[in-house]
Amino acid sequence: MTPPPARAGDPIAAIATPALVIDQDALERNIARMAAFARECGLRLRPHAKTHKSAQIARMQIAAGALGVCVQKVSEAEALAARGIADLYISNEVVAEDRVARVAALAGQVRLAIAADSALGIDRLARAVQAAGSTIDVFVEVDVGQGRCGAAPAGAGSLARRVVSHAGLRFAGLQAYHGGAQHIRSSADREAAIRRAVAAAAAARAAVTSAGVACPLVTGAGSGSFAFEAASGVYGELQPGSYVFLDRDYAANEAAPNTPAFEHALFVLSRVMSRGEAHAVVDAGHKSHAIDSGLPAVWQRDLDFANGGDEHGILLPRAGSGSHALPALDEVVWLVPGHCDPTVNLHDHYVCVRGGLQQGIVEAVWPVDARGCVA
Amino acid sequence: MTPPPARAGDPIAAIATPALVIDQDALERNIARMAAFARECGLRLRPHAKTHKSAQIARMQIAAGALGVCVQKVSEAEALAARGIADLYISNEVVAEDRVARVAALAGQVRLAIAADSALGIDRLARAVQAAGSTIDVFVEVDVGQGRCGAAPAGAGSLARRVVSHAGLRFAGLQAYHGGAQHIRSSADREAAIRRAVAAAAAARAAVTSAGVACPLVTGAGSGSFAFEAASGVYGELQPGSYVFLDRDYAANEAAPNTPAFEHALFVLSRVMSRGEAHAVVDAGHKSHAIDSGLPAVWQRDLDFANGGDEHGILLPRAGSGSHALPALDEVVWLVPGHCDPTVNLHDHYVCVRGGLQQGIVEAVWPVDARGCVA
Repeated sequence: MTPPPARAGDPIAAIATPALVIDQDALERNIARMAAFARECGLRLRPHAKTHKSAQIARMQIAAGALGVCVQKVSEAEALAARGIADLYISNEVVAEDRVARVAALAGQVRLAIAADSALGIDRLARAVQAAGSTIDVFVEVDVGQGRCGAAPAGAGSLARRVVSHAGLRFAGLQAYHGGAQHIRSSADREAAIRRAVAAAAAARAAVTSAGVACPLVTGAGSGSFAFEAASGVYGELQPGSYVFLDRDYAANEAAPNTPAFEHALFVLSRVMSRGEAHAVVDAGHKSHAIDSGLPAVWQRDLDFANGGDEHGILLPRAGSGSHALPALDEVVWLVPGHCDPTVNLHDHYVCVRGGLQQGIVEAVWPVDARGCVA
Repeated sequence: MTPPPARAGDPIAAIATPALVIDQDALERNIARMAAFARECGLRLRPHAKTHKSAQIARMQIAAGALGVCVQKVSEAEALAARGIADLYISNEVVAEDRVARVAALAGQVRLAIAADSALGIDRLARAVQAAGSTIDVFVEVDVGQGRCGAAPAGAGSLARRVVSHAGLRFAGLQAYHGGAQHIRSSADREAAIRRAVAAAAAARAAVTSAGVACPLVTGAGSGSFAFEAASGVYGELQPGSYVFLDRDYAANEAAPNTPAFEHALFVLSRVMSRGEAHAVVDAGHKSHAIDSGLPAVWQRDLDFANGGDEHGILLPRAGSGSHALPALDEVVWLVPGHCDPTVNLHDHYVCVRGGLQQGIVEAVWPVDARGCVA
């Protein structure tokens, strides 16, 4: 664990850069906006904690109306459960024997659900919960367009029957998330992709019902598409994650109609460590922000961020600006990460700033509780 | 800190995937080969610990003949010093007041060197070591082709004079690393780039000497180019890092003449968690391996790795193979990361396997001591 980059009460200038910084006011507004949206739609909200990996933020989401949170990994569930989050859904498959045993043990401690898309996975879960004396909710995952995990819609019925054949497993419904649709830029194209996902989810639900199993819930949706699933009449629960922070990639989407406007709430604070005639170098590179969805944007400056490797970022005047746009040696520069989830995964701490990014004060430093939880 | 993915004595099958795994035999051979190369050239070897972030591996490198190690960040130096590494060089600039104070404090505890490329940085270092009562070696960094940090060669003389003007700062020589040359695929093109870097380093050395300052050392070179710097007659010290692990990106280089052959020693062990008709999904995505230098390669299988997001990897039969090439549900698959340094930075532990990747046994689990050290 690295040392905290700041202490409560510090001014911005005292934060050891590079640091992962939350605009606390913006975070709270984002959480409230999504909670209000789900409430107005009459839908369950179970935000995805894979974004923030933080028990503190999960608690804020639950206080605002969420039932609990989703995670992607068993170790994430363990980390959040250890810090008091008592209603968790692992929205992902687990087949490995060691991990299935950990799932069954955790199911004895918190309200736990998990996804499954194979007979082997379901049978192993059943044996493990029987051995542990626990019970667990199981969602059958359906591939609704992502082309990754999940059964074909027609296969959902036999998997649901397999779930209900086992004591200790409760069939909870269908996991139907279309990750590939979240960043389709055009709102109309995104809506079309989700229309197909909704049709696949409805077909899977029909297959489950035809197999003689009641389907209590269809759950899914992400920060790019949730308004479409919400309007579908098929989905009963929304799982958005990134709305809490709004990264550069999500901000580049054309907004869907009838969705709340979210704000950037997650930044990497960097500092100029070297200056050339026509460029500046900041102390934040691939070790400070994930680049799977592109390089970060420079916040409210006429500057472009160019790849400087693991430890450096190269700032260049944006076309049309001259070198006078460049920051001075030792000046701080705010970056908006391309993709929030894996950016958060690089850091041990959030530095929470209240009162804006210019004059704000560090209000708290929170651990990233589930950082590095890949297992 | 996540729980260790294995214990000493475990078979491969017991490792909780995804996990960062070292082929211990290959690691030891790589370390010995580079040490022998430097010894035969009569050059100092100071490997770059930014690759491995591990006091244990630094100790192995020092035991094989290295003088000490390089790091890129103050917090990396602190983490390795706290675990017994007593000769450290921060081959990077530090200007922020809080960090300069930490450098000066650390210089009172271990033999420490640092790079500088600005008058401000040098003056702040001088004040800080004076306040701390410590002394430090300072290398002036020269831009030898990377276009990132470093003074122009002609500017090295005045910076060297500025260093020697301060009590507490010792001018140690020139930092002259050309990171941009390391992955030029053609050996001849790489050699040409390093020829220009050598000329720039020689010009900077002449500027220092003309300014009336003796230049004790030129240090630099990476795992892609070190044979060229070694043959230059200008460089007295080599700083390669990635040779310990050899990632996919370095392995794609055309080998330079007269260089030792390194082996892949770093892997991500993954496991199939979902199977489709024509693809398999493993439990390792961007949270398990860095993708700044491309996706991982699948080790010794006729499979291609496709992007499955943060937590998943999609395996497809390589062109010409059929779906029979796909691994079964729950089968383990070894991945060779595209870029070792930021891949290591994602994990808290190395699982060290002795006896090969098929039948080997876990010999030890080492912490990644400087993981997340961005400050």
